Parts: sequence; C-alpha cells; structure tokens
Amino acid sequence: MSANADNLQRFTRYQIETFMARCFAASGMPDADAATVAHLMAEGDMLGKDSHGIFRLPSYIGRLKSGGFNPTPDISIVQERTAMALIDGDNGMGHLVVNRAAEVAIAKAKKTGVAWVGMQHSNHAGAAGVYSNKALAHDMIGLYVAVGSANHLPPWGGTEMLLSTNPIAVSVPADREDSIVLDMATTVTSYGKVKVYAQRGIEMPEGWMVGDDGNPLTDASKADTGYLLPIGGAKGYGLALIFGILAGTLNGAHFGKSVVDMNADASSATNTGQFYLAVDIAAFMDVEEFKKQVDAVIAEMHSSPTLPGVKRVRLPGEGAHAAYADRSANGIPLPDPLLDNLAKVADDLSVEGLS
Amino acid sequence: MSANADNLQRFTRYQIETFMARCFAASGMPDADAATVAHLMAEGDMLGKDSHGIFRLPSYIGRLKSGGFNPTPDISIVQERTAMALIDGDNGMGHLVVNRAAEVAIAKAKKTGVAWVGMQHSNHAGAAGVYSNKALAHDMIGLYVAVGSANHLPPWGGTEMLLSTNPIAVSVPADREDSIVLDMATTVTSYGKVKVYAQRGIEMPEGWMVGDDGNPLTDASKADTGYLLPIGGAKGYGLALIFGILAGTLNGAHFGKSVVDMNADASSATNTGQFYLAVDIAAFMDVEEFKKQVDAVIAEMHSSPTLPGVKRVRLPGEGAHAAYADRSANGIPLPDPLLDNLAKVADDLSVEGLS
Repeated sequence: MSANADNLQRFTRYQIETFMARCFAASGMPDADAATVAHLMAEGDMLGKDSHGIFRLPSYIGRLKSGGFNPTPDISIVQERTAMALIDGDNGMGHLVVNRAAEVAIAKAKKTGVAWVGMQHSNHAGAAGVYSNKALAHDMIGLYVAVGSANHLPPWGGTEMLLSTNPIAVSVPADREDSIVLDMATTVTSYGKVKVYAQRGIEMPEGWMVGDDGNPLTDASKADTGYLLPIGGAKGYGLALIFGILAGTLNGAHFGKSVVDMNADASSATNTGQFYLAVDIAAFMDVEEFKKQVDAVIAEMHSSPTLPGVKRVRLPGEGAHAAYADRSANGIPLPDPLLDNLAKVADDLSVEGLS
Repeated sequence: MSANADNLQRFTRYQIETFMARCFAASGMPDADAATVAHLMAEGDMLGKDSHGIFRLPSYIGRLKSGGFNPTPDISIVQERTAMALIDGDNGMGHLVVNRAAEVAIAKAKKTGVAWVGMQHSNHAGAAGVYSNKALAHDMIGLYVAVGSANHLPPWGGTEMLLSTNPIAVSVPADREDSIVLDMATTVTSYGKVKVYAQRGIEMPEGWMVGDDGNPLTDASKADTGYLLPIGGAKGYGLALIFGILAGTLNGAHFGKSVVDMNADASSATNTGQFYLAVDIAAFMDVEEFKKQVDAVIAEMHSSPTLPGVKRVRLPGEGAHAAYADRSANGIPLPDPLLDNLAKVADDLSVEGLS
C-alpha cells in the first residue's frame, strides 16, 4: 500500500488540517480544540497511519452529531500525586485528552524523573505514535497505551470477543539517526488496517483474522464475522489483557464486555481508558550520551546480515519517517472513496470542502 | 512437562532453599545474601519456572568460582529523583540487585504513586515473575523488564544475533481470584526452556527456533546453531529492541553486541540491565474496588466459550499458581541429570547435599 504506487490524489498537510478544523468547528467544538484535533489527526496522516488520520473524520463527525462526543469537554485532573495523575476527559475527543495527559506527564517527569498519567472518559485518539512522539522534544522517552475502541479479539482459546487490539506506542530519541518509534497493536494487525483493506477491496493475508468457524478470514469486507489474532498466541492475549487493565480498569474506564464499539454505536459515551508514561532521560544519564548510544544501537541493527530476500534490517518507525518525508514533499495521498465521504461531510456541515 | 506426569524425585522448598543457601555461603557470599538469593530462586521453582530456579545453581556457582559474580557487592543508588532511581549492582547476583530495586520502587511509589528503578552492573536474576509479584503485598502493580543474558535473536529480517529474549513480567492483584501474572519473553519461547528440553532430550515444536539455514530447528541439543523467533515477527523484534533500550541503554548497561553470553563466559562481568516499575493502585482508585474489578475481568475471560479442544480459557499466571499449589503440597520435582549436577556442586563446595 505504498503511497507512491497508488497514483492517488494528494493534498498538503495544510489543506487536510484546515479542512478538518473547519469540520470540527462547524460541529460545535471551540476553534482552538478543533485546530488541536485537526493538527494531531494530520500528524497521523503524515506518519503514514492511513487508517488513523483523516480516514476517521466521517466517523468522528458522526459521533459529534449523534452526541457520542462532548464537543465542549471540561478535561480535568481528578486524582494526583507527584508522579501520577488521573485525568477525566469528560467524553471529549480522545486527541484532546491524550494530548493533555502527555503534557501533564512530561511536566511531572521533568521533576520526578518518571511520571504516569491515566485517563478515563476519554475516546479514540487516532495514531498512537503521535502521542509517544510528543516526549521526544523534551528529551524524554514517551510510552502510550490505550484500550481499543471495539473488541475484536477473544481471549486465547476462547471465541467471545472480550478484548481489543490495545495498542502500545513507544518513542525513543536518537542523535543523528531518526528516533525509534514502536507503534503496534497486540494483534497481528489492527482493525483500522482491516477497514482500509475493506475500503480498497484488497484481500488480507492469512494469519490476520480468523472466522467464527475457526478458519482463516481473508475477505476484509467480512471482518465483522471474525476476529483478530493476537501476536504470539497466548502472549499477545496476555499483553492485550494487561494493557487493558492498566489503561482501562485502573483508570475506572471500560474494559472487557463494557467496551462500547465506536463503529457500531455513534451516540453512547465510550469511557475509553488510556495511559501515558514519560521517562526523563536526564534523570538516568547525560542526554547526548544516551542519544549517541541509541545511534549505535540503530547502526548495529542496520549492520546485521539479512535473510534471503531482505534488503536491510529496519528499525521500528522507519516506515513512518519515510512517509513523513514523502508526504512533506509530495502531499498526503487520499483514495477516491474517502474523498467522496469527506465531500459528503463538508456538504452536511456546509463548510468549504477539501479541494 | 507437567510435574505430576514426570514421576520425578521431589524435594520440599525448605530442602532446596537451604541447600542453595549453603552453596552460596560456601562460595563466599555473606549468609544473609546467600539466604536471600536461595529464597528468590526457590520461589521461581515454586512458580513452576523450572528453567529459572535451582536449575541455574551450577551455572551461578561456576560464575562465583570464576569471578564472574562479585560475592560481596556494594549495591547502591547512583542516580535519584523522587519517582526514580538508578541502582549500581556492583556485579552482585541479579537476585540481590532486582530485589533491592523492587523495594526502592515500592517505597517510592507509596509516596509518588508510580516509581521506576533502573539497574546497571546487575546479573541474571532468575524468574521474572518472582519480582513483579513483590508489588502485590503492597497493593501495587509490579512490572519488571530485563535485558536477557545472551543474544539468541536477530533483528527481524536479519541473521546476526544482536538481541535477547528481553522478558517482561507484570503482576496485578485480584480480590478472591488469583493474581494475574504475565511472565513472558518477547520470543516464542525462552532459551531457558530450550535448555530444559535439551537436558531432558525432548524435541522442540516448530516455530520456536530457526537454524542458520533458515529452516525450523527442533533438536534442542543444537540450539547454539540457531536462534529464537520473536512473537508476531517484526512486533516482537520491536518489543525486544525497546525493552533492551529501556532496561539496558538507558541504565548504562550492556545491550546489543556488548551483551556477554552468561552461558559461554563464566568470568566476565555482564553489566546486565533491568528496570522495575511500581504502580500504587490507591493513587488511582479504592484498592478493594480495583481488586473486585480485576475479579470481574477474570470471570469474564473464564466465561468465554472456547474453541474445539480447549477446556477453558486461562489467565496469565494460572499455570504458576497451579504449580505453586502442587509444589507446596507435594514438593518440587527435579530430574535426575539436574540432581547429578547438584551433587557435583555440593561435592566441589564440600557442603551437605540436597538429599
């Protein structure tokens, strides 16, 4: 799904970001919040997270219209100690809530060395790496975990979809090399990617999903009849479970059966849970020395001989960095079906369209 | 490899623990440290972690003899803020270092809500779950990550063994149910388990390791000609890499090419890195309420219908809890080849043997 190979219409970040901001403002959000969410979503598109950026706009606007999001949330700290906080997102858009949580965690970690901020009454926040990356400018390591916004994963050996993909993102700064950014679901693939495959009519590889009958499911348009598979079998199930407890249960947020499927229900509050962990490198060692050592780690990985057919070893985040460079230069490619949906959104809201 | 099916000779925890303490004391360690390490190792055996308890005694005693471990370390805090510390283990046994780190993290988290303690100049510490479990008695969630003590994993797509299994353990307290304890390597299996298979002459299933030729490796006795496979392919590689940076690089500990293979080299200091994270539940919500909700999560998972051939869904740690109950009642089963090795250790050290 390389952007270059697609021959799709491309748009500048400015076009996409200002369009989304118009849509959110027209949906009752304050201008500043509308701009913040649009910025964070466009950042997801820049990182190549096609299923977690502007692709989600129609769904988000639908939730704002149906009362599923609070357009004017009072995001506040409801529990606090020096190295932690629990933030109540007041059912605002997840982007606003996680953005605030990252800021609070980073500010606390500057003093305490490490800080953890949990979130409740939050919502889907888009691409996870956007938030873990926020720590980099502060010479910190950022870690972000979320309870996924729909259950597509049964516990290992089971058939009831009690778990979500519960993603994790970790960003580590380097010196001359690009930062390392791991942004992964605890499932072999994400449901967002499945939806992109469905929209583009591409068949999924075996191993991504299984059907109700226990057989591999490769037709993305039938995704709702099957479920995602965890990485490493029982281990991925264990990670999804633990991340769900840490990001959901511990924050008084939904996890397990209580999770609201954001795609099936546009009006119920989801009480999504997330947490953000900031680690201040300067508390451990000289920051420049650390970054040089990360460079050395990256060089070591790149220097590894490869298996037949593999050109070179990659670092987590290399794809995102390449997408960022490409999209900065050439714009963000958007497929026609999405453009149709975006035109409809603009029409419904009576705002100026994307093109 | 069920203990009951083995028909192996069994020993009480007391027998095993006091035997190991004798061996460590006879190897130059202070009595109190010898007892602490023996206690933590026996706890690993009680949890059913056969490859990470007394099984390691001959190797550990060998390192003490060869100068690979410092028998009288000065374990000290070298960096500190309110919610973090960096501990220098002075090349003492990892059990002592991680035990101290857990205590420091728990004490700090009681005040700050969350605390992170990194370790440098540490060593292999045995079963990871032993340490994450330490948080439970304090109504905390414990998380422990280590740089593995030998590289058996190439970066994804590569063939040079630059990474280890870099395990993670997380313990979450429940109310009436058993605690949830995820204790896993970022590889499909651990090298310790491979060694047990080799010692017992059991063939490994496909998917655990690949040989130099890229083909599946199932003969455990040839483990040193191949390498372990990460969970979820590139994702498990990403986790191993990030855990290695957080537990190794950030602490000024070895990671990557600099990792010393503990099994191949008994005399060089390994400068093993680890970190411990303690999360105080009371900072987030009422502890009893949290535990009841964890009970509810466990009940939900157990209630899931199962795939054909699966009796019931399990929670992470169920196997360890079952082993603990069995071994409390019936003793710890030890295979004859290990007993031979232990007898040799006792002989060499001129201490009273196990039986």
